[in-house]
Amino acid sequence: MQIAARIEGALERAVAQAQGPGAPPLLASALQYAVFPAGHRIRPQLCLAVAQACGDPDPIASDAAAVAIELMHCASLVHDDLPCFDNADLRRGKASVHVEFGEPLAVLTGDALIVHAFATLGALARQNPSRMATLIGIIAESVGAPHGIVAGQAWECEVAVPLSDYQRAKTGALFVAATTAGAAAAGHDAAQWRTLGEKLGEAYQVADDLRDVLCDAEELGKPIGQDAMRLRPNAAAELGVGGAKVHLEGLVRAAVASIPECPGAVELRALIQAQTTLFFPKQLARVAA
Amino acid sequence: MQIAARIEGALERAVAQAQGPGAPPLLASALQYAVFPAGHRIRPQLCLAVAQACGDPDPIASDAAAVAIELMHCASLVHDDLPCFDNADLRRGKASVHVEFGEPLAVLTGDALIVHAFATLGALARQNPSRMATLIGIIAESVGAPHGIVAGQAWECEVAVPLSDYQRAKTGALFVAATTAGAAAAGHDAAQWRTLGEKLGEAYQVADDLRDVLCDAEELGKPIGQDAMRLRPNAAAELGVGGAKVHLEGLVRAAVASIPECPGAVELRALIQAQTTLFFPKQLARVAA
Repeated sequence: MQIAARIEGALERAVAQAQGPGAPPLLASALQYAVFPAGHRIRPQLCLAVAQACGDPDPIASDAAAVAIELMHCASLVHDDLPCFDNADLRRGKASVHVEFGEPLAVLTGDALIVHAFATLGALARQNPSRMATLIGIIAESVGAPHGIVAGQAWECEVAVPLSDYQRAKTGALFVAATTAGAAAAGHDAAQWRTLGEKLGEAYQVADDLRDVLCDAEELGKPIGQDAMRLRPNAAAELGVGGAKVHLEGLVRAAVASIPECPGAVELRALIQAQTTLFFPKQLARVAA
Repeated sequence: MQIAARIEGALERAVAQAQGPGAPPLLASALQYAVFPAGHRIRPQLCLAVAQACGDPDPIASDAAAVAIELMHCASLVHDDLPCFDNADLRRGKASVHVEFGEPLAVLTGDALIVHAFATLGALARQNPSRMATLIGIIAESVGAPHGIVAGQAWECEVAVPLSDYQRAKTGALFVAATTAGAAAAGHDAAQWRTLGEKLGEAYQVADDLRDVLCDAEELGKPIGQDAMRLRPNAAAELGVGGAKVHLEGLVRAAVASIPECPGAVELRALIQAQTTLFFPKQLARVAA
């Protein structure tokens, strides 16, 4: 099965469980709205690509890992868009959850998605409780405090922000979760896959910074120029567009070089090289380094 | 060790982990503020009381269950107090988290507490992954959608609310988690302990309804008369204060009667009977049935 179809199927089954009989109807609708239709699904694709490179002997575990990571990502988007944070009206090209369903349901949708990510992993217990435990540890670390995406968002509330801590937590943590959980779900050593997640997370952040400067809102699916408006650090603003492009290409090379030996290493290296260009802004092809 | 001291110790260790080196300082402070000083700790006390009645052979597991339940409860208080829900300025006799730290940190504090509850359970994996898996299933069900406290809060966003679904999810779910997780942490059959949690949850809800009508804000530690103001269902308003008192006493009797055979059944029955009067409003002693 193609990875994309596999991810959508697994997400549909997971969200349907949270919407199960007796759920408040508006919450059930908001959960659907927050997860579908698909965004780029970069993190779960990365998770499954790593699992497949490791032979993917336990696709139920790797599906659960991919689903948990994407549900966490969707939860973070719903909460980050709230009026008290980015106050973003637009997300993935449609009204954000609080605009469509109101703030209370947006808060609760994020909460329910976080819980359901863990519930999805917990359901793995029947077949392999110790693998499930490893995955829960990886996902909790990448989302919570002190170093996960929640902590990353909390750095925006501080006056003095250590830039590397901020970016590592805000963007990098879920990429690290994707690579390490993909490996762990396949029974491989998670630690060896950490650098791949870190480098790709940093590359994604630089690409996002470039998009915030270069793109139009239609391509981006959300408002542009947000970093400058919110005085957030932006690599393109610091290094210039050309400098940021060079940095980005270096990160992708480092990511590819970090892939450890595994049955599908050659294919994964080619895939990462090809896929990363997909999240480069279209305009970047026209920028000379 | 006294249950109360055991709970505070376990909570302090758990929160310290989330505040670990590198955490954003304000988030770390808000986590402390949201969990300490102690509220009544009714749910973790119930969890440990059930575990002890079952012999408590694995206190690390029962501590983790009690901590996870209280962190979830604290998270729900922080999010429920937000301006978009109850807009409550006062909680446990002090400024609520969003008043003290601002809305963004209040949202993130709730998120981080939810994640850390699962992280605390996940850390049990080293000693007993299958017991951990049972506990994660219990906690996830009691907090998420379709039937947990998040769903209970979401019922407040609906026009038509099935009252029993609402109260079972909003208040009952975490009491059921407390009794069933306490039993499961001690290796007993969780299902047998469900009725105790349901009856105590319902009793607590009726007592809370009575407090909302009878108490002053100082005893309650939060504003009174909120249900009438928000058109929320209230047992004291529906049955009258005398009728609600009779209902409450019946629920406590049913709770005590439901306790299954276990090594400490006699002591637990006496404890439940004594403890439940602690969450009755003081003024209730003066009300004739």
